[in-house]
Amino acid sequence: MTHHLRTHHSAILIGVNTALADDPALNSRLENTPLSKQPRPIILDPRGRWDFTQESKVMQLASKGEGKAPFVILGEGTEVDEEKRKLLERVGGKFLEVKLGAENGRFEWVGVLRVLKGEGLDSVMVEGGGEVINSLLVGEGNRYVDSVIVTIAPTWLGKGGVVVSPPREEGKKQVRLKDVVWVPCGEDVVLCGRIER
Amino acid sequence: MTHHLRTHHSAILIGVNTALADDPALNSRLENTPLSKQPRPIILDPRGRWDFTQESKVMQLASKGEGKAPFVILGEGTEVDEEKRKLLERVGGKFLEVKLGAENGRFEWVGVLRVLKGEGLDSVMVEGGGEVINSLLVGEGNRYVDSVIVTIAPTWLGKGGVVVSPPREEGKKQVRLKDVVWVPCGEDVVLCGRIER
Repeated sequence: MTHHLRTHHSAILIGVNTALADDPALNSRLENTPLSKQPRPIILDPRGRWDFTQESKVMQLASKGEGKAPFVILGEGTEVDEEKRKLLERVGGKFLEVKLGAENGRFEWVGVLRVLKGEGLDSVMVEGGGEVINSLLVGEGNRYVDSVIVTIAPTWLGKGGVVVSPPREEGKKQVRLKDVVWVPCGEDVVLCGRIER
Repeated sequence: MTHHLRTHHSAILIGVNTALADDPALNSRLENTPLSKQPRPIILDPRGRWDFTQESKVMQLASKGEGKAPFVILGEGTEVDEEKRKLLERVGGKFLEVKLGAENGRFEWVGVLRVLKGEGLDSVMVEGGGEVINSLLVGEGNRYVDSVIVTIAPTWLGKGGVVVSPPREEGKKQVRLKDVVWVPCGEDVVLCGRIER
């Protein structure tokens, strides 16, 4: 499912914490996926913390032509080591800059999406992590969401896991999906829906 | 779904916190459910905190013959107000006593289930709340669970809701369900499964 969806988006976006924690591949592992159908990996990295090397999975795949090279979105004016820039550009990736919000020092979605659009990227699959997804489920973010797809496994991870749920805001209604479809998929179920606005 | 399931169990069990918070009815509201098919409400109340009156929903339903009268399980030796006892017995309910665990001052499931069995109650549907369910998902409790049924709605309640998930225990494997069936049910999905042991 994930790998199928990845071929249907021009970009796949994650936050820097997920990049650091998981060293993700961010390509579609469906057999015979041509490079043109691979999504462009986008890493939201406001302060330039992503410490990729040529051994990082996404860099290796880009070298081998099994995935596109990543675009890394930095906060405007963030300095980057020249070696890192060369490493990224050598595989076809690049750094892009987006202004950070004055209030909270974070990206605003409208700025990020505008820059991606400027790069010819029309559809973005946001995979994680929790913080990035939560920011799309509240406030400004959810204006830009077309669909939400959630895979639910029949397990309890236990308290203390990563909670992907927007903060509860007094007086605001809870985020709810409409046009809901549940697709049982082996042991899991996949929930597809749109945010009710 | 809930009301259908309630007619298929001889008892329906909740913890005292749920009784206090929700004033639940604990009967099946399916039309034409005969009293013999109604489940026996069981309230786990180790320290006798349930402050029911004749206005409590479960008491009203018992008076009208639309639900069975509740059995309240107290910690052994808990004193109960004589008026409350009369009120309960008048509608056909009673207090039962079960020894509390010396270590944690809580009921052990084996003791509770043994007392229910002594009352002719062969199957118990445990509805909540979070604490009661969590105690069935870990340790001793999960030996006594046949099936788990979870209804999932396409909404985010937000951080700070009641988390029904067992504590994460270092080195122990996470609770997982087997023989899983997902049943889409309107906007919701119902998950049925058995605990993998």
